[in-house]
This record gives sequence, C-alpha cells and structure tokens, in this order.
Amino acid sequence: MSTPASGRLIGVGTGPGDPELLTLKAARALAAADVVAHFAKRGNDSNARGIVAGHLRPGVIELPLLYPVTTEIDKTHDDYRTAIGKFYEDSAEAVAAHLQAGRTVAVLSEGDPLFYGSYMHLHVRLADRFPTEVIAGITAMSGAWSGSGLPITQGDDVLTVLPGTLPEAELLRRLADTDAAVIMKVGRNLPKIRRALEGVGLLDRALYVERATMANTRTMRLADKADDGAPYFSIVLVPGWEARR
Amino acid sequence: MSTPASGRLIGVGTGPGDPELLTLKAARALAAADVVAHFAKRGNDSNARGIVAGHLRPGVIELPLLYPVTTEIDKTHDDYRTAIGKFYEDSAEAVAAHLQAGRTVAVLSEGDPLFYGSYMHLHVRLADRFPTEVIAGITAMSGAWSGSGLPITQGDDVLTVLPGTLPEAELLRRLADTDAAVIMKVGRNLPKIRRALEGVGLLDRALYVERATMANTRTMRLADKADDGAPYFSIVLVPGWEARR
Repeated sequence: MSTPASGRLIGVGTGPGDPELLTLKAARALAAADVVAHFAKRGNDSNARGIVAGHLRPGVIELPLLYPVTTEIDKTHDDYRTAIGKFYEDSAEAVAAHLQAGRTVAVLSEGDPLFYGSYMHLHVRLADRFPTEVIAGITAMSGAWSGSGLPITQGDDVLTVLPGTLPEAELLRRLADTDAAVIMKVGRNLPKIRRALEGVGLLDRALYVERATMANTRTMRLADKADDGAPYFSIVLVPGWEARR
Repeated sequence: MSTPASGRLIGVGTGPGDPELLTLKAARALAAADVVAHFAKRGNDSNARGIVAGHLRPGVIELPLLYPVTTEIDKTHDDYRTAIGKFYEDSAEAVAAHLQAGRTVAVLSEGDPLFYGSYMHLHVRLADRFPTEVIAGITAMSGAWSGSGLPITQGDDVLTVLPGTLPEAELLRRLADTDAAVIMKVGRNLPKIRRALEGVGLLDRALYVERATMANTRTMRLADKADDGAPYFSIVLVPGWEARR
C-alpha cells in the first residue's frame, strides 16, 4: 500500500495592498496552487484575497479561515487565548487535510508572512510535517516609506519597529533611543503615540501613512493629523536620515 | 519656445537576490524604462543589474555609476567624505541629464531603495526637481527570515535593526532590550556580534544567513558558524517569537 505524496505548504506574502507589489514568485505560486487559503473576519472579505484576486486560477479550491468572533472577550483573558488557540489548531488541520491529499496549499498573508503575520500560526504547526516554503512579501512599512518617498535609514542608523499598543512610557523611552522608528498598529493608539513623539521632540519629523499603497492611501505630517480616528493598519514613520548631501 | 517634458525618475527595488522576488511593478517599470542606472564598484559587475538582467529591454541605455576607489582612505576622514559626496553629485547630474532630455530613468537598488540603499543619495538630490516614484523591494532581512522559515515577530514584539558596525557595548545594550533583532553588515564584525549575543544569553537563538535568497545562500545557527570570515552582506536574525502554540 502506498500513500500519496503530500502536497506543499506555501506561505505567500501578498504585499501591502497594491496588486502590482506582488512578487513574480508569488504570482507563479498562486497560478499553480491547488488550494488558496486566506484568513478573514467573519462577514468580511479577506484583504489578502482582494490583493491577489487577479492571479487566482479559475476553479482553484478556496479555503477561507474565519476568525471566531471575539470582540466581546478581553484579549488578555484566558477565554480569548483558548478561542484563538482552538481556531489556529482547527485551521491548521483544515490545511493539513488538503496537504495529506497531495494538494499544494498557498496560504495568503498580507505584507510579509513571517513579519507579524497570521500565517506563522499555521507555519509553526505544519512546517515540520509537510514540505514548506515561505515567499517573502513587501511589508506595509516598506510600502509606506516608498510611497511617501521618505528615506528611512542610511549608514549606521538603528531602526526600531514598535507596536503602537505599547504603554506610553515605553514608547517614549524607545523613541528617545533610536535613529529611525516605525510605529505599527496605530488606530486608537494615535493620541498616545503623538504624546510620546512630542515628548522626545520628534513630532515634527513624523509622517502618518494610512492604508499604504492602496487606492485610498493618505499621507500627511503626523503634526497635521487630527486625533479623529485612524485605521488600525495605519503607520507612523520617523526617518533616521535627514537629507544629508 | 518649448522645452521637452522631463522624464521620470524611478527608484526600483530589485529585492535581495532571487530574480523571482522582483515585484510585478518593478518588472514593468524596467521593461518600459529608457535608461537603467546601477551602482557598482569599479571592475565589479553590479549585483542589482545581475538580479534584473532578464527584465532589461533590448537596446535600453545603461548608465553604470562606478564608486570611486576609496579603499586607501579612512572612511571617517574628510577626504573620504569629499570623494563620496562628489561621486553622488556627479551621479545625480548624469541621471539629471537623461531626465532633462525626457527619458525615464530606472535606478536599480538591491533590496529596498529607501532602506539603507544607495539610491537615496540620488533621491534627495533629484526628487524635488523631477517627477519621482519609488518601487518598494523585498529587503535582504525579509529574504533571510523567509528563506529559513523563521517567524521573526508576532503580536506586540519590538524589532530592532542593528548595523553590525556598532560598538560591542552598544550592540549588547540594545540586544538586551528588544524582543527580536536583525543585525546587518555582519562581515568582519562577526566575532564582536557573537560576543554581544553571548553576553545577553541570545547566542543559542541566533541564526546566521549568508547571501539570502541567492543560489549560493547558506543558513546555520550562529553558534555553529566559525569566525573564519563572513560576507559583508550576511545577516544575523534573533527571532522574537518562540513557537507559541
């Protein structure tokens, strides 16, 4: 008795939003995949799927992985951890079933799969059981500084990538001790981030970028941005390299 | 009298080495460019040009920008700054001449143009004089963690990008105060980097990646890498996210 050769797991970085920022390698992997899996919130379309829609093979099997509704649960609570842990377990098993049947599964990941991406929750559960490949993608931060023409680092600059969810005192301490900074997950953390940048005298250098590389992207000096709400995936950039000539 | 409309300056990220990691946007820009400019050391081929060789239009005008020979000059010395400053001025003027003649000029940049890239020396001199676009590229660090299947950051991780040229005490201090780290420009700084990681108890977690995504790439635990030389563009990765399930 022989079992079929297992399929290949491919983590595919879709880049930050502009479909043209997909790599040639990702486009080819998508055109050849038997199954395309994508994470989304229940009731929402997957952003990653929208980015690569033009590259999906007609008739490809789609495997949506729908996050459980956890908005009612405190994220630090054990119930949240249990719900989300079970979701990743179930998702990994749904992908594994296709791999065991010999199908190649491309898992979409906005930006870069192993850089703050959901894909890695499947990767750590499956990469030691199946042949696995990860295709790098353009990160949202790279899309943000490229789109705004902002040289972020040069020479011996130190770059610090900070989640905006950090406490204000920690943001302040870390911003005071770096040449360049990227602050992710801005959203409702914007007023706190602004105070921290003001506290270290960097507010005038900071740039606010909303939905980098997407059709409805907006870029402005953070000092000119009102505290009237920001999408979760907006980014703040502090360039390390002033225009030296 | 009318003057011809000026051409467009495009900073094109070529990605870290694998020609398949070029973006669709970069491939299209190269196929349409009138002039392709690339930095190289005198007597050496341009790495970036090698990556995109398959995408250059037959008959495209090539503009090699050859670094002056400065190996004899101390990099902190005024003579070095003068030589390199003049080189960037002259390069910008060579590019500007084509732009003024109405030609679109694609300037190749290994990795991502505005992330430690040479392109930005032209960008800061030309972007306010000519229509300019920057096309993001996959960074070497992203190629390194993707190629080795290493989840680098998740959730609220702080990532610090450090040049290996920093003094040992500063490397040690910063490595002790981050969740994840990328150390660039390893080369002959390797023994110092190893000591700093050992000093903060992170040597066992560190991965050494040589020539990420290129045909002759090598990846190993840093603890297993001998201090017998490393290419300048090798990278050390310290993942912030242990395989949490």
